[in-house]
Amino acid sequence: MKMVDVGGKAKTDRLAVATARVRMQPKTLRAVREGRVEKGDVLAAARLAGVMAAKRTPDLVPLCHPIALSGVEVQVTPVVVGVEVRAEVKTVDRTGVEMEALTAVCAACLTVYDMLKSMDRGMVIEKVQLEHKSGGRSGVWTRASEGQARLKAKRGNR
Amino acid sequence: MKMVDVGGKAKTDRLAVATARVRMQPKTLRAVREGRVEKGDVLAAARLAGVMAAKRTPDLVPLCHPIALSGVEVQVTPVVVGVEVRAEVKTVDRTGVEMEALTAVCAACLTVYDMLKSMDRGMVIEKVQLEHKSGGRSGVWTRASEGQARLKAKRGNR
Amino acid sequence: MKMVDVGGKAKTDRLAVATARVRMQPKTLRAVREGRVEKGDVLAAARLAGVMAAKRTPDLVPLCHPIALSGVEVQVTPVVVGVEVRAEVKTVDRTGVEMEALTAVCAACLTVYDMLKSMDRGMVIEKVQLEHKSGGRSGVWTRASEGQARLKAKRGNR
Amino acid sequence: MKMVDVGGKAKTDRLAVATARVRMQPKTLRAVREGRVEKGDVLAAARLAGVMAAKRTPDLVPLCHPIALSGVEVQVTPVVVGVEVRAEVKTVDRTGVEMEALTAVCAACLTVYDMLKSMDRGMVIEKVQLEHKSGGRSGVWTRASEGQARLKAKRGNR
Amino acid sequence: MKMVDVGGKAKTDRLAVATARVRMQPKTLRAVREGRVEKGDVLAAARLAGVMAAKRTPDLVPLCHPIALSGVEVQVTPVVVGVEVRAEVKTVDRTGVEMEALTAVCAACLTVYDMLKSMDRGMVIEKVQLEHKSGGRSGVWTRASEGQARLKAKRGNR
Amino acid sequence: MKMVDVGGKAKTDRLAVATARVRMQPKTLRAVREGRVEKGDVLAAARLAGVMAAKRTPDLVPLCHPIALSGVEVQVTPVVVGVEVRAEVKTVDRTGVEMEALTAVCAACLTVYDMLKSMDRGMVIEKVQLEHKSGGRSGVWTRASEGQARLKAKRGNR
Repeated sequence: MKMVDVGGKAKTDRLAVATARVRMQPKTLRAVREGRVEKGDVLAAARLAGVMAAKRTPDLVPLCHPIALSGVEVQVTPVVVGVEVRAEVKTVDRTGVEMEALTAVCAACLTVYDMLKSMDRGMVIEKVQLEHKSGGRSGVWTRASEGQARLKAKRGNR
Repeated sequence: MKMVDVGGKAKTDRLAVATARVRMQPKTLRAVREGRVEKGDVLAAARLAGVMAAKRTPDLVPLCHPIALSGVEVQVTPVVVGVEVRAEVKTVDRTGVEMEALTAVCAACLTVYDMLKSMDRGMVIEKVQLEHKSGGRSGVWTRASEGQARLKAKRGNR
Repeated sequence: MKMVDVGGKAKTDRLAVATARVRMQPKTLRAVREGRVEKGDVLAAARLAGVMAAKRTPDLVPLCHPIALSGVEVQVTPVVVGVEVRAEVKTVDRTGVEMEALTAVCAACLTVYDMLKSMDRGMVIEKVQLEHKSGGRSGVWTRASEGQARLKAKRGNR
Repeated sequence: MKMVDVGGKAKTDRLAVATARVRMQPKTLRAVREGRVEKGDVLAAARLAGVMAAKRTPDLVPLCHPIALSGVEVQVTPVVVGVEVRAEVKTVDRTGVEMEALTAVCAACLTVYDMLKSMDRGMVIEKVQLEHKSGGRSGVWTRASEGQARLKAKRGNR
Repeated sequence: MKMVDVGGKAKTDRLAVATARVRMQPKTLRAVREGRVEKGDVLAAARLAGVMAAKRTPDLVPLCHPIALSGVEVQVTPVVVGVEVRAEVKTVDRTGVEMEALTAVCAACLTVYDMLKSMDRGMVIEKVQLEHKSGGRSGVWTRASEGQARLKAKRGNR
Repeated sequence: MKMVDVGGKAKTDRLAVATARVRMQPKTLRAVREGRVEKGDVLAAARLAGVMAAKRTPDLVPLCHPIALSGVEVQVTPVVVGVEVRAEVKTVDRTGVEMEALTAVCAACLTVYDMLKSMDRGMVIEKVQLEHKSGGRSGVWTRASEGQARLKAKRGNR
């Protein structure tokens, strides 16, 4: 078990974007949209929880390096099936910030769930995924569109 | 914004079970199954990360109560499409442990992602969901089977 | 140095209320009231930071007992001289929650300062004080009004 | 809600100094001066709590960047009206350490309060304020003397 | 990997005492005794670090239950070969506090080491051990004297 | 009490290696070797706890600087008298990582103790010590062999 040594890597600008969503019942979503949630403002709480969780990533993910994040932005938006979360994390460091972006979206989704669970325990957190990363030796990575992804998955299965 | 007062509730035995999975490419899954992962034992790390994260829940989810967990068990198992995680959390307290179980599965999935990401950045964390809860005023709740859930969702949309 | 033993005390309902305020320049306050702050919603962020900090009290205040908080509510309100914060914390435990309430108001004020500091570095956090506590052996305590307090202070100095 | 991106800023030497005080009854202050406090050495505990809290700043203040502090010094001194706290924090980083210095003085004051509260619940934490900062794009800032400040406040109110 | 379920156990008074020591060079010890240490008061810092670490035990020891500690006392004393640490931890809970007492002495010893390491990197933390525990199903346990322990160890080896 | 200013030091490659061991009864060690421990895989849990604790060092050791660790590796190995732990920590920073390596071995040993304590409360954590460090102004330091150390200790006592 080791946190791999990144001491030899260069400090470069790194960016990661992750997304996820909380699927919920239409009436739950209406309560969010109309601000009728007993515990308070769901979207604001989720955004803040996401930003704060990005900073806690190395406490949660055992082999993650502690990283000096230079910027974190979390968006939480009502969509058709529920609430969508998008986190963008930046650093100038020796290793990437994919885990920070993914942790931020998880925490934001968990916060959405927590604030609404008394109305709708069946909500599902879905599609927690990296959308894009840049910087570092492995360079740019961007998620293929759903169609491309299905093709790729097929090839991978062969 | 408030952490709702649960001081008037009785301390009762409470249980929550949550599940999630990390969908990955077949070759990534093979590396897990065959123990060929540079960072170490993926399944053991994910299990431990899950247990530890359950205890950090009130630090991550802003309006969650701090709870004296009496037991946490996390299972991480390779399945056909990737790795499946199941967390069971127990307490004898004034409020439920749904968030602890969901946080545990998120952290376990994030740990799986972290240890495999250099091979497969496209992995997706899916279906983070409560399966069952018992104890407390709202009593027992069990997730409907997928078929039932689809029916319910339809009715909800009407 | 010791965290005094409270094992012999009874678990009773306990409540503490603390307040504080951030004094700021009128133009800074206007920016808050009008929602023109680059970093986001100051009042929502401060409220949430207050609730979360209440839970971190034993990590910050060395000899504080870890306490199972049953409720926390933080209000952050623009007033004439700046922003006023009020935290109400409840527990059913062996020791009081004065420190949790005071820590919550400090964190909320620090958050207000942080989000506005690029406009107004001279802001001052003032009057961080307990207003009321009840429960436990020492019973009810309520802060005297300002007039009474000045009288008392005089007597104390004699 | 976002932690603003500082990736484009230069790493420079930065310093911040903050102060605060805990106003207390004369007999409480005498107990501190004479070392007659049941919980232990108040001044030593407050100093240490201040240093440790400086390091926890990004956990408490939601939109604060995690910063590699290069030095922290906290002084806790009995004065006429109670106990005065002064924190000096240094870094070589992309953003300032004002919040770290303010958090340090808050935690030191809270610790003073905690150790003395059984004698004097009416203590007030006052004048938590930045005294000086240097480094970074905004350069040097020094708090005006009380007289100057009153003048400025008047002008600001016009 | 699991945090075993203690929900069925009774809440009883529990106590644990642990000790350890930091062996150091005589000149290092003299610096401690004479208060000539650049970083500050070694004994006070170590005591406080011990108390605070007891509260962090479930964050450090993966399968430890979060426990509502009712009292913690840490003593740090210069002895012939260096500095001796003793921690006494109490709770009224479903599981024991051995780990809290052991974690407290470890953190106190690490703090002693940290404050003196520039003088004496060869210091050794020794004999981190439980001395006594009481409460709970397994009842009272007291460490045998060194002579008895050696005998026992022999028997164990047969 | 201060965290000494290291802002003037150069960022250089730094390495520290620490070791420790948990002495236990032969039958306890057999249970570890044969994987018959109710709480789960002792060696994997201890390794992970060590890595994670290295990252928490500045939270536990009051005057330790927060450091961007670039690599951490923890080995936990059954030996004749019990379980031996070795941690290797690397950074490219202004101050050394001795405390991180020592904290990692302490946490790994505490985890071993925790998972086995129901069988053997008499286990002792021994010889928590730095083995080697390099980098920084004070350069390379390597622990003398036991024979050399005894000689040195004698000279030190004169």
